[in-house]
Amino acid sequence: MYPNKFIKLIDIYEKLPGVGNKTAQRYAFSLLDYSKEEIDECIKALQDVKEIKKCKCCGFLADEEYCPICLDSGRDENTIMVVAYPQDLVAIEKIGTYHGLYHVLGGLISSSKGVFPEDIEIDSLLKRINENTKEVIIATSPTMDGEMTALYLDRILKNKKIFVTRLAHGLPMGSNLDYADELTLIKAMDNRQEMKEND
Amino acid sequence: MYPNKFIKLIDIYEKLPGVGNKTAQRYAFSLLDYSKEEIDECIKALQDVKEIKKCKCCGFLADEEYCPICLDSGRDENTIMVVAYPQDLVAIEKIGTYHGLYHVLGGLISSSKGVFPEDIEIDSLLKRINENTKEVIIATSPTMDGEMTALYLDRILKNKKIFVTRLAHGLPMGSNLDYADELTLIKAMDNRQEMKEND
Repeated sequence: MYPNKFIKLIDIYEKLPGVGNKTAQRYAFSLLDYSKEEIDECIKALQDVKEIKKCKCCGFLADEEYCPICLDSGRDENTIMVVAYPQDLVAIEKIGTYHGLYHVLGGLISSSKGVFPEDIEIDSLLKRINENTKEVIIATSPTMDGEMTALYLDRILKNKKIFVTRLAHGLPMGSNLDYADELTLIKAMDNRQEMKEND
Repeated sequence: MYPNKFIKLIDIYEKLPGVGNKTAQRYAFSLLDYSKEEIDECIKALQDVKEIKKCKCCGFLADEEYCPICLDSGRDENTIMVVAYPQDLVAIEKIGTYHGLYHVLGGLISSSKGVFPEDIEIDSLLKRINENTKEVIIATSPTMDGEMTALYLDRILKNKKIFVTRLAHGLPMGSNLDYADELTLIKAMDNRQEMKEND
């Protein structure tokens, strides 16, 4: 019923994650109201997509060969935080308290999805690690795949005599204890810490 | 933190209706996995947006001057169904039981949004109506603006001695009576119909 050019537009929106036909139509209709300049802006952004690079050092997104974090001489080169995806790096950076470097794996080891250690950026992590590396912080999500990846990394890094830490698991701040799931409660008890006066 | 080209990509997705920063990021990340061909397809669809026309007769979307429905000689020219938006036309067409023509207003009269009769395609509707027009079906949504537009159209069309009907209001099929809102129940009672044997 719709003209072909409009159907094409719906089609490209329907390919986006979590977008069904109804939402894709809504997006396509909103585009009909765009000015020529706004459309050109969208086209330019799409044309530039293939120029977005992966940082040669950490695997984060970059305009040039290296990302701004790896290029920043003010960062603490002794610490590397390992995350699964670029989004995770951004979440940590937003807090603004971590000043070390990162390594983006680009995925997680997963038996269900058939992702093996060689499919993600583990080799490049091992190559980066040198005598300056004091600590590797594993910051994968506490999911099945995240845990599996963390255990794997821990094993191979410890073989190399590197000090490995992992983000703490426990009760999320502001949550109600009686709403916490069993596994979180067990972790919170296992990882309990001595109270300090200024806590 | 993200490279500029990626931020631009997030920006264009964030402009879509109902899309926040988090969803826009998700869309932008999904695009990074597209092949060169898929990106080119998206660019082509956007380039074609400004070539999508409005049908010169009914106001629906069209590749050429007229839409396929207006060009279809098999449609019943004696009936015109008036809808607010192209999406409404598509909803009716999907049922497949209506074989008349349409007229897309491109909006609804609205005192709150300051939309007046001259801002929507009412003039072009009046120009279309001729001695062949036996019935105009008003199919605006039963909302405040939809009702206002229906009343306005009814008045000016009746002045022209045209038979005007309106989609029925009542209980939606498969609904529970005790969940129906008051206004719907009142409409359902007012519009009650004599039972027929084959009902």
